[in-house]
Amino acid sequence: MLLFFKTRKLKLMQKSINRQWRLAARPVGDIKESDFEYREEPIPSLEDGEVLVRNIYLSLDPTNRIWMSDRPQYMPPVQLGEVMRGLVLGVVEESKNPNFQPGDMVSGLLGWQDYALISPPNLLSLIKLPTPLPVPLTAFMGPLSFIGCTAYFGLLDIGKPQAGETVVVSAASGAVGSIVGQIAKIKGCRVVGITGSDEKCQWLLEELGFDAAINYQTADLIPALAKSCPNGIDVYFENVGGAILDAVLTQVNLNARIPLCGLISTYNSPEPVPGPYNFSQILMKRVLVQGFIVSDYFQQWDVAFREIGQWIQEGKIKYNQEIVEGLENAPKAILKLFDGNKMGKLIVQVSPEP
Amino acid sequence: MLLFFKTRKLKLMQKSINRQWRLAARPVGDIKESDFEYREEPIPSLEDGEVLVRNIYLSLDPTNRIWMSDRPQYMPPVQLGEVMRGLVLGVVEESKNPNFQPGDMVSGLLGWQDYALISPPNLLSLIKLPTPLPVPLTAFMGPLSFIGCTAYFGLLDIGKPQAGETVVVSAASGAVGSIVGQIAKIKGCRVVGITGSDEKCQWLLEELGFDAAINYQTADLIPALAKSCPNGIDVYFENVGGAILDAVLTQVNLNARIPLCGLISTYNSPEPVPGPYNFSQILMKRVLVQGFIVSDYFQQWDVAFREIGQWIQEGKIKYNQEIVEGLENAPKAILKLFDGNKMGKLIVQVSPEP
Repeated sequence: MLLFFKTRKLKLMQKSINRQWRLAARPVGDIKESDFEYREEPIPSLEDGEVLVRNIYLSLDPTNRIWMSDRPQYMPPVQLGEVMRGLVLGVVEESKNPNFQPGDMVSGLLGWQDYALISPPNLLSLIKLPTPLPVPLTAFMGPLSFIGCTAYFGLLDIGKPQAGETVVVSAASGAVGSIVGQIAKIKGCRVVGITGSDEKCQWLLEELGFDAAINYQTADLIPALAKSCPNGIDVYFENVGGAILDAVLTQVNLNARIPLCGLISTYNSPEPVPGPYNFSQILMKRVLVQGFIVSDYFQQWDVAFREIGQWIQEGKIKYNQEIVEGLENAPKAILKLFDGNKMGKLIVQVSPEP
Repeated sequence: MLLFFKTRKLKLMQKSINRQWRLAARPVGDIKESDFEYREEPIPSLEDGEVLVRNIYLSLDPTNRIWMSDRPQYMPPVQLGEVMRGLVLGVVEESKNPNFQPGDMVSGLLGWQDYALISPPNLLSLIKLPTPLPVPLTAFMGPLSFIGCTAYFGLLDIGKPQAGETVVVSAASGAVGSIVGQIAKIKGCRVVGITGSDEKCQWLLEELGFDAAINYQTADLIPALAKSCPNGIDVYFENVGGAILDAVLTQVNLNARIPLCGLISTYNSPEPVPGPYNFSQILMKRVLVQGFIVSDYFQQWDVAFREIGQWIQEGKIKYNQEIVEGLENAPKAILKLFDGNKMGKLIVQVSPEP
C-alpha cells in the first residue's frame, strides 16, 4: 500500500502536477465531501526569495470546520475557491531564499495540496524544524506542534492546576485532550477524562494513567462526574461544549477555572446553540472562563517545546496518531473528526518522509 | 408621613415589640408577598457580650432572591421560618460588649426586623461606621457599602478598563451599575449604559455623564450596541444575563473582559434558562468571563471606601436611592427590584435616623 503510494506520488511529481482541494461550499451542519473541490495545477516555478515545499503530513483539526464557515472567528475564514487551509509538515524542495535549503524540514499553514509556494511576506510563519530531529517527525504534528502548546498553555496558564486538585478534560482521547491529561498528571493532579467509547476510556486509564474515565455515550454524566470527582472539579479543560459543559458546571468547586479551548459539539450545528443552562454557576461559584488561542502564546512556544520534548523523551507524554494515506482521502477523513470514532491526532500522509 | 411614621415607631418601642418578616415559602418564579410571614416577638434582653441594634435602613437587593431559593449558592440559603436576611444600617440601642456603645452606628446582615440581637460569634461581621459620618448615612447603603465595592472591584480588578476603551454596563441605573459607569468615566472610558426606560436613559446621560444609553425595552439591541460602541466592547459589566448578554457577545472585542456580577433576568425563572446562544464568541474572541462576589475582596474594602468616599466628596460619584417607608412594606417593595421600574438603590426605612 505504502509502496504503491510512493510510486504514484513520484509519477505525480514527474508530471509536475500539484493536486489541491479547494473550498467549494460553506458547510451547512455537518461537513460534506462535496464542500471541497478537486483541482490539478502545475507546480509553480520560483521567483527570487521564494521557497517551494513538498507537503508530507497534513493535519486535520476541529478548527478547520470554523475556517470553512464565515461566522465571526479568530482568523479570516477560508474564501470559497481558495485552497483549503491546513497545517503541514513538509520538506523544502527548492529554494531561492538564503534562509532555506533543499532538505530543510518545515512546518506551516501550507494547505491541502501536494506543493506549497511561499513568498517572502509569508515566510515568517514557516517554522524550520531542528536538525537532526530529536523525536519522530509526526511528533511535530502532535505534542510538539500548536496542539501540544494548546494543551500546555491552556492548562498551565489559564487552568493553573495545583497538585492535589481535580482536572477534568473533555475530548480526552483527542490530540489536545490526551496531552492535557498527561500534563495534569505530571503536575500531581487527579485527572478525569471524558470520551466517547469504552475502548478510549481503557486507553486513557491503562496507557495514559488517567485516574478515571467517563464514556459520555453511555454514562449518566452528572452522577458519573460526581463519582469520579469526589472532591469536586477545580479545572475543566473544555473542548466540547453542550451537555458536557452543563454537567461539569454542576460539579465545579469555588474558584474553578475553565480554559475554553474548543466547542466541537456545536461547530456543525446549523441552528443557534444555547449556552450552558447552568451558566449561573459561573457566578455562584466565582468561576473563571477564559477563551484562548494558542497563537497568543507564540512568543513562548519554545518554552513549551523544550519542556514537552523532554517529557516525550522521558516517556511521560505519549501520543496516538491515526494516519490516513493519500491527499485524495482528506475530504473523507475530516468527517472522522466529528463522528467520535477517532483516537488521537488525525493526519493525512500526502507524500513520503525523506 | 414621616412624622406619623416616627410616632408609630415610638409606640412599637414602648410595647417592646420586634416586628419581623420571616421566610414562609421558597418563591416559584416571581417573589410573592405571601412568601413572607409577619411575626411579632418581644425585643430580646441582652446577655453578657451581646449587642442590641435598632435597625434604621434595610437594603433590598437582587441577591435576596437567591437567598430565598435553595438552589446551590454562595451562602447558605435562608431557612424556611428564619427571619429574612438583609443588609441593615442601624444604631446600637444597648450593649453588654465593651467594643460597642449605645449610639454607635453599625452595618451588618441584621435581617428584616425592627431590632437585632447580635451575639459575640457574629459580632465580627458587624461593621462600625466612622464618627462623625463623612457622608449622609444612606451612602453606607450605596457607594460606601458592599454595593460600591462590588462596582469597584468587579470593574477595576476583573474588567481592568483602560482609558479610551469602551465599557458597557447593564442594569446601568441600578445601585451597582450606576457606580460602575461613573468609575469607568473617571478612568477615561467611553461608557454605555443599558437600562429599562427613557427616563432612566436620560438620567444616565444628563446626571451621570454616560456617553450613550440604551433602553432595552424599546431598542433593537444589536444595532443599538453597534451604534453606541463604534469601536466594539472591551469591558461588559454583567448584571442581567439573558438576551442582553447575548447581544453584547456579538459586539465584543478581542480579549474583552466580562465581570459576571449578577444575572437578575434569570433569578425568577422556574424553568432552566439557557446560557447565551453566542457562548462560542467567548472562545472566538478569547473573552474572559469571571464570576465574582464582593466578599472575596473583604480585606481590601477599606481601599475602595477611601477612594469612593473621596469621589463622592469631589462630586464625581452620584447616587440615587428610592426609600420606601416602613418595615411593613418590605415584601411589597422587593417586587420592585424585578419589575424594571426602580431607579437607584432600593431601601426600606425601618426607623428614623438618630
